[in-house]
Amino acid sequence: MTDAASRCPEAFLTLAAEVASAARAVARRHFRQGLAVEDKADESPVTRADREAETAMRALIGAAHSDHGIHGEEFGIENPGAEFVWVLDPIDGTKRFITGNPLFGSLVALLQGGRPILGIIDMPILEERWTGAAGHPTTFTDRAGSRAARVRPCADPAAATLLATSPEMFKGADQPAFDRLRETAKLTLYGGDCFNYGLLSSGFADLVVEANLAPYDHLAHAPIIAGAGGVMTDWQGCPTGLGTDGRVLCAGDRRCHDLAISLLQVA
Amino acid sequence: MTDAASRCPEAFLTLAAEVASAARAVARRHFRQGLAVEDKADESPVTRADREAETAMRALIGAAHSDHGIHGEEFGIENPGAEFVWVLDPIDGTKRFITGNPLFGSLVALLQGGRPILGIIDMPILEERWTGAAGHPTTFTDRAGSRAARVRPCADPAAATLLATSPEMFKGADQPAFDRLRETAKLTLYGGDCFNYGLLSSGFADLVVEANLAPYDHLAHAPIIAGAGGVMTDWQGCPTGLGTDGRVLCAGDRRCHDLAISLLQVA
Repeated sequence: MTDAASRCPEAFLTLAAEVASAARAVARRHFRQGLAVEDKADESPVTRADREAETAMRALIGAAHSDHGIHGEEFGIENPGAEFVWVLDPIDGTKRFITGNPLFGSLVALLQGGRPILGIIDMPILEERWTGAAGHPTTFTDRAGSRAARVRPCADPAAATLLATSPEMFKGADQPAFDRLRETAKLTLYGGDCFNYGLLSSGFADLVVEANLAPYDHLAHAPIIAGAGGVMTDWQGCPTGLGTDGRVLCAGDRRCHDLAISLLQVA
Repeated sequence: MTDAASRCPEAFLTLAAEVASAARAVARRHFRQGLAVEDKADESPVTRADREAETAMRALIGAAHSDHGIHGEEFGIENPGAEFVWVLDPIDGTKRFITGNPLFGSLVALLQGGRPILGIIDMPILEERWTGAAGHPTTFTDRAGSRAARVRPCADPAAATLLATSPEMFKGADQPAFDRLRETAKLTLYGGDCFNYGLLSSGFADLVVEANLAPYDHLAHAPIIAGAGGVMTDWQGCPTGLGTDGRVLCAGDRRCHDLAISLLQVA
């Protein structure tokens, strides 16, 4: 194990915070400024803010650790075989960003050997941030300061508040699987993107289920959810990592998680 | 016509702003404070914040104009036959409020002879407010000050960004009607409640469609949308008022509105 590894993840918390703050500054500067929107090949809207933010994030990481890998939404993968790989989504919720809605976030994850050991969800306009690091309690930081974030108990999906960005993210067989969970839950709310994972970590919701996510959409969340006392896995119940198929399930309470997995897996 | 009517709606703008600010203060005090949630007969969650806010709003109106009517979500209808009737929703988006999500609002509408002549959408946590008054430009106010809110042009639903709180608000025949509009729109985003109407007024979206709304959910919006250059009607294209059946359609551009109405009305 390298010297750096023996100090993880604490050794990288300050840098991770600086990387998230760099994205926040760019996002705040461009929010509601009447951006020209381009369509990428996959039709998702991309703004200049996205690219400027990722450039700033990469510069900070490169200056501190030129041996680390970086995997970002906008500029692809550098040095993917490195022990430490940063996974960046400068603006998660681009569609909300371009509609003037402040519920978009900047995501920073640090992987060691392919597993997320550090994650930040930053909400640039709300000035709220969740920070998770393997083996440490998750913290929530806003203008009033920092404090521990903690999930709430909820044993049964029938009593759960379920969050998802949109019902239309579930395609093919994922759709009836989601519908089973939605029909069981007490309350389902749409919208939110990464913010939903933060709300679950702070005990305001019980389940988050999503599909068709890219690695940079979800890798930051696992250390945050775990450090707040919750559970995040794929739809088979396995820990999330670079190999996750884009389908994730988070619960604040393991009992609720296990029952939700059963609902998703019924044939 | 009474003396008050001849001064409308300017005569009531200051009071309306005070009423919205009273709701904002109560909502901010209770947000994320671990409220006990009750279920009303219709299962919607109600918080103490809702009731305290409406009490504060009613007190201000009663002190200034004891002859006015008041129609609020929590405490029913007083003096409904009055020429001027205030319609109040202290917390629109209660479900978001109880999940710690700041995208809830406080709504204030003033009707004269049953028609909305003044409306405020206040976002207590975001500290943003849209104010509309018949015959005046709509204003948007945030921490940086006040300025005019203005819709953007968008002639065709196929180029439109469409906002709705949830696809599940459309029941029965409303569901295929909504699906036609959603499948035509370039982009559909869920979540938002009253915030969506503000975003449209400020030119960040092109269409808002909803159903199953109560009068206090939508009456504040019409003067805001109209004063920003947009169009708000029911699904038949008629102006919204107390008699609206709960289905509303807003567009920033009249051409887009007319085509959207056609899509909603196809048998």
